[in-house]
Amino acid sequence: MDVKQESLRLHKEKMGEIEIKGKFNVENKEDLSIVYTPGVAAPCLEIAADKEKVYDYTLKGRTIAVITNGTAVLGLGDIGPEGGLPVVEAKALLHKEFAGVDAFPIALNENDPDKIVEICKSIAPGFGGIHLEDIKAPECFKIEERLIKELDIPVYHDDQHGTSIAVLAGLFNSLKIVDKKIEDIKILINGAGASGIAIAKLLIAAGAKNIVLADINGALVAGDNSLNEPQKEIAAMTNKEREVGKLEEIIKNKDVFIGVSVGNIVTKEMIQTMNKDSIIFALANPIPEILPSEAKKGGARIVSTGRGDFKNQVNNLLVFPGIFKGALKGRVTNITDEMKINAAKGIASLISSKDLNEDNIIPSVFNKEVVDVVANSLLK
Amino acid sequence: MDVKQESLRLHKEKMGEIEIKGKFNVENKEDLSIVYTPGVAAPCLEIAADKEKVYDYTLKGRTIAVITNGTAVLGLGDIGPEGGLPVVEAKALLHKEFAGVDAFPIALNENDPDKIVEICKSIAPGFGGIHLEDIKAPECFKIEERLIKELDIPVYHDDQHGTSIAVLAGLFNSLKIVDKKIEDIKILINGAGASGIAIAKLLIAAGAKNIVLADINGALVAGDNSLNEPQKEIAAMTNKEREVGKLEEIIKNKDVFIGVSVGNIVTKEMIQTMNKDSIIFALANPIPEILPSEAKKGGARIVSTGRGDFKNQVNNLLVFPGIFKGALKGRVTNITDEMKINAAKGIASLISSKDLNEDNIIPSVFNKEVVDVVANSLLK
Repeated sequence: MDVKQESLRLHKEKMGEIEIKGKFNVENKEDLSIVYTPGVAAPCLEIAADKEKVYDYTLKGRTIAVITNGTAVLGLGDIGPEGGLPVVEAKALLHKEFAGVDAFPIALNENDPDKIVEICKSIAPGFGGIHLEDIKAPECFKIEERLIKELDIPVYHDDQHGTSIAVLAGLFNSLKIVDKKIEDIKILINGAGASGIAIAKLLIAAGAKNIVLADINGALVAGDNSLNEPQKEIAAMTNKEREVGKLEEIIKNKDVFIGVSVGNIVTKEMIQTMNKDSIIFALANPIPEILPSEAKKGGARIVSTGRGDFKNQVNNLLVFPGIFKGALKGRVTNITDEMKINAAKGIASLISSKDLNEDNIIPSVFNKEVVDVVANSLLK
Repeated sequence: MDVKQESLRLHKEKMGEIEIKGKFNVENKEDLSIVYTPGVAAPCLEIAADKEKVYDYTLKGRTIAVITNGTAVLGLGDIGPEGGLPVVEAKALLHKEFAGVDAFPIALNENDPDKIVEICKSIAPGFGGIHLEDIKAPECFKIEERLIKELDIPVYHDDQHGTSIAVLAGLFNSLKIVDKKIEDIKILINGAGASGIAIAKLLIAAGAKNIVLADINGALVAGDNSLNEPQKEIAAMTNKEREVGKLEEIIKNKDVFIGVSVGNIVTKEMIQTMNKDSIIFALANPIPEILPSEAKKGGARIVSTGRGDFKNQVNNLLVFPGIFKGALKGRVTNITDEMKINAAKGIASLISSKDLNEDNIIPSVFNKEVVDVVANSLLK
């Protein structure tokens, strides 16, 4: 099967991935009097008298918006809101199919972070949560931070937290195999955008003490004024030893390499300079930073990628449906680091100790237990 | 059946009226590679290269937004976006059930017309049309006017045009019965908000020469500086004889009374002062300006209301699903007066001359031909 051609054919035939479905039949005047006038006035009045009842009588309590402006779509960059629409439509489909969460895609023709915040706040009355998607860094940080503060519904940027939770789940299980502790390991994260920064923050929250974050210019060091604000903030929390240099220098003596950058930038020679039992997350899509076979040749013990055709796929789909299933169920407005760490532990726990091995550190997205283990991590 | 209690019960049980449904199965890795990565990159790239293809590969070409801010909900007034949400959800359901149009409800926490315009423009990339609903006058006029001018998708305010098209359909058939011509009749429209002004404009476009528009203060007269801008505009187009006075004075010698105001304000004595074979549209909901039985006692020949439990129901549901079915099918960006008049003629034509009588001037909303006759009126 030619995936590209088949995807184009099916998207065209179906005109996108989701549709609206009525929950009421409307076949006669009596039906109509319930769903429309005069009956619909009853829930309107109940809600007008007590705004909280919007959760009882409308779709709000089970429906989220998946919002993009198309500025950081997959690995394709800024391709505009229309270009980004198929991805948010796909995310909406997956929310429903995997977690029963109703999700509607919104593609915004707007790049100004403050205006995006205002738009999201304006449309929030009809949604029980906001899933931000494919919005470029550093704007995504400000948007999410302001919305979390200013809205009373959960707000979650998948490019940050979906990736970071899935990586942490894989890391927890990898560390069991190599018998190292998270507080002892040296980690290099290559890529200082939304995912890289979010991964660093979550790993710190989970106990990691020694992280170096790098971008195309090399290691981020506190006090570098060429960095943007979110990078400055994370630089101050990482790289305590002020390592400097490009990838091939700073990868030396690391236990873990996490790539959220671009394909084919790590060689097996670089892997050879890492510590024994090195763990590689080469998450660039569709071409990873290094192919698993090459990484193994360089001595890597465990290799994960973002791809479904290799072992150990780190996939946000393990995370986002369960996050919103749990957040909606528990009316959770703030998805805390503790919940994210619990979600990662929950995902990791689905690989039993007897099944755990170098080629099996993370469950399949089709493992039916994943969604609820993630959802329940928000409900403890 | 207690409609109110049954409506509350069902809205609560179902948590609203619509849900999201996937158009793809996602049961294995191959499915996932089509709907999500890597396959979804293919439509993204096609659209990035040619924005028009968003109509081929996404929901846009078959999906509209039903947008309210809850400032003029049913007859309930300004009850806020949450309070207005059940109505836009109902409209979304009816779009799908009656016309196969996918529609998603959006409740906006915003009352400033210019900001509403900006929000609608921002979210427009993912929608093929915008149905404005329950937004109060005079703001609704500016919002619709600017959006029609500034967007390349159809924009339609149902409170204005749904009502005006349905009334015109009923009027066309009523005039056949009483054998009067639209250009000869004297019309009083009571209510100078969104519906009243839109009805006046469409009747003028359809050939009416003698219309007086009134509100609670009496007849609108050109040059009255207490009127808002849309009222000044319509005052200048109507009431050529500068009639003044309250309802009971200006209803005298009219052929047609159209009420889009409040219940129980017209008496049978007032009807008695109208011309012979008077035609009454008493559209206030749930209580009409005068009950049909009273109007008949006053000598009215034909009486319509907005209610389904009386004869001759004038219902926007005759109009809006077909409007968007046609607009989406024909990629119609500007719904012209000519199309609206054709839609009214089309609806009227569904009552054959042998079935036409005082109690049967307008088809039922369950007449299966209505949607297509309206849709086709946009496609000629």
